[in-house]
Amino acid sequence: MNAVTGFGRPSAFVETVPSRVDAYIAAHDFAHPTLVVDIDAVERQFRALSAGLGRAHIHYAVKANPHPAIIERLVRLGSGFDAASRGEIELVLSQGADPAHVSFGNTIKKASDIRFAHHVGVTIFAADAEEELEKIAENAPGAQVYIRVIVDNPEADWPLSRKFGCASDKVMALLQRTRELGLVPHGLSFHVGSQTREARMWTGTLDQVAAIWHRAQDEGFDLQLLNIGGGFPAFYGEAIQAPTAYAQAVMALIADRFGDVPQIMAEPGRGMVAEAGAIAAEVVLVSKKSEADLHRWVYLDIGRFSGLAETEGEAIRYQFATAHDGQPTGPCVLAGPSCDSADVLYEKRPIQLPVGLRAGDRIVIRNCGAYTSTYSSVGFNGFPPLETIVI
Amino acid sequence: MNAVTGFGRPSAFVETVPSRVDAYIAAHDFAHPTLVVDIDAVERQFRALSAGLGRAHIHYAVKANPHPAIIERLVRLGSGFDAASRGEIELVLSQGADPAHVSFGNTIKKASDIRFAHHVGVTIFAADAEEELEKIAENAPGAQVYIRVIVDNPEADWPLSRKFGCASDKVMALLQRTRELGLVPHGLSFHVGSQTREARMWTGTLDQVAAIWHRAQDEGFDLQLLNIGGGFPAFYGEAIQAPTAYAQAVMALIADRFGDVPQIMAEPGRGMVAEAGAIAAEVVLVSKKSEADLHRWVYLDIGRFSGLAETEGEAIRYQFATAHDGQPTGPCVLAGPSCDSADVLYEKRPIQLPVGLRAGDRIVIRNCGAYTSTYSSVGFNGFPPLETIVI
Repeated sequence: MNAVTGFGRPSAFVETVPSRVDAYIAAHDFAHPTLVVDIDAVERQFRALSAGLGRAHIHYAVKANPHPAIIERLVRLGSGFDAASRGEIELVLSQGADPAHVSFGNTIKKASDIRFAHHVGVTIFAADAEEELEKIAENAPGAQVYIRVIVDNPEADWPLSRKFGCASDKVMALLQRTRELGLVPHGLSFHVGSQTREARMWTGTLDQVAAIWHRAQDEGFDLQLLNIGGGFPAFYGEAIQAPTAYAQAVMALIADRFGDVPQIMAEPGRGMVAEAGAIAAEVVLVSKKSEADLHRWVYLDIGRFSGLAETEGEAIRYQFATAHDGQPTGPCVLAGPSCDSADVLYEKRPIQLPVGLRAGDRIVIRNCGAYTSTYSSVGFNGFPPLETIVI
Repeated sequence: MNAVTGFGRPSAFVETVPSRVDAYIAAHDFAHPTLVVDIDAVERQFRALSAGLGRAHIHYAVKANPHPAIIERLVRLGSGFDAASRGEIELVLSQGADPAHVSFGNTIKKASDIRFAHHVGVTIFAADAEEELEKIAENAPGAQVYIRVIVDNPEADWPLSRKFGCASDKVMALLQRTRELGLVPHGLSFHVGSQTREARMWTGTLDQVAAIWHRAQDEGFDLQLLNIGGGFPAFYGEAIQAPTAYAQAVMALIADRFGDVPQIMAEPGRGMVAEAGAIAAEVVLVSKKSEADLHRWVYLDIGRFSGLAETEGEAIRYQFATAHDGQPTGPCVLAGPSCDSADVLYEKRPIQLPVGLRAGDRIVIRNCGAYTSTYSSVGFNGFPPLETIVI
């Protein structure tokens, strides 16, 4: 394998790629695709977000990257955690998290997992439906509940569907039902949409949630908690606002609309870890399908089913670096190594790669710290899952 | 969890669901979603396909389900194997396969993996590009090569993209290059498209490949092998032809077009194992997003990232059975348990499920023996991968 020692890279990358990761990748060979994460870059991002968020408490969205070394560092920094499952709760507790700072944020929970969470000391749960409240009441009696609401945000790069949350016409009934069941109607949560690149894009969403919040106060619910979810962006080629300024601006928008909220919780995941990691991968084949084709097909040893699931629909566009950077480039369809014809990363909008690219060349995929390692399949086509090294 | 002892099911299911699987699922509790595969049903399907394929040799597409017990049984029955990776080659050899009956069918192979395959006795390799031929020549000198060609088949349920194969204008040049590199230009392969439900749908594809085949013979390439790939269907709600009649009819179409081909290889994967397995899963939540909604959302403990990847784009429509079958039904959006808003199985075409369905109910997902277990993520959202039990 070629050792890539120094990539020319456009200045836009400089701030988003931790040079320790570059140096580590350049100095090592990897038999399989490997994600390298700079744990100090995670810490810097935590501090930058915290500085902007002020009194809001960060609950890191564990699902973004649950590597134990990341959890352990964030515990030490005083982060809370948003857990999606029993497995994630077990993980963060094993790394020293205080269960009082862990929220069970998935609105879809098995009764047995709620019981487990309650048993180990988790006190706060998300819900968006009557049946979920009934499960919580039975298995975590007296718990604090926040109701997740559906909001529309056409400005996010990746607006979430209606899968999570309830429409505004159901919120009061659910808060009422929470109380009837002996639970604490503690607050509201929402998700502005993944990869909301600038703080000003939160405005419409916050307007919608504030209207619900004030109506709930008017109807006698003494809400304590506003959970603003995730949406904090990472750099994928388009300009994003710097973390501290972004978080500060979001908090200012909240203060304008909500007044003096007792508790605010934020759940960055992607925005915490994406830029701290890069994947060392390899070009396996460069070909043309027909003599008449103007573009090449470039096949990597990593694809949608071995770590790059977020390229589905070409939603997330990663940045690539090779030893040939600086050469002339040409348009490429980029694909993974598996037999699945859907394992194509970029085809509708091909990417530009150096014309000298060959099988066996290393390719570095930047800003891959979030939503890669755990999405990886256990062994589709007999390929091993993406490995992670935290440095 | 409810023990589901006897589902009412439409007669269309009777032949496709092995009753041993139903009985096993009804008699057991499962903490997590579990795929149960009837190994004798796999054997019956192998025999049925073999009966129709006659002298064509089956190379089971390992990627469809690489459970060692399936490989071991197929070795005993005399099957060959189509391997997509070094990992799959290691697997089939560990279960006693003869390397002479293993083809390395992925057109995208690392040089080191080709070298490994050659070293352990694999003699036949797929290719669709010059660079791939060069890797094979260097790492498996003298090997037999078949060239994969791109064909159009608008009749398949799931036509494959252009990811694999070369256009017909490149085939002669690649055969020539194969020979120049000291390799054996042994034959051609193609893929008719996944889930080609009736044999007659092969006609257009076979016409295209036969034209290339005869041209190659005319140009002096003494081709020995026609690899007809997969495409053998499984039951997903729409009528399919029975396996022996289907295979017989495909072979007749081939004889008409190709004459006396020395060797024919077929690579059923889905068509071998899909109907032999069912997944025992659980309903986690049933809800409505708004008081005005006419449909329910039904959330399962399994989704696109924990085994049901083939529901992407709602391509594969599984059948479901619950203890409430026979009750009135209503339209449901079906979704998985993860935080990913794309983890929705059926939304554009909602499915009908019994109105009495509740959190905690068991749901059996039929015809799940293929392309489920290995697609499963290693732990997205902290959920464990799909477990497989072979009975």
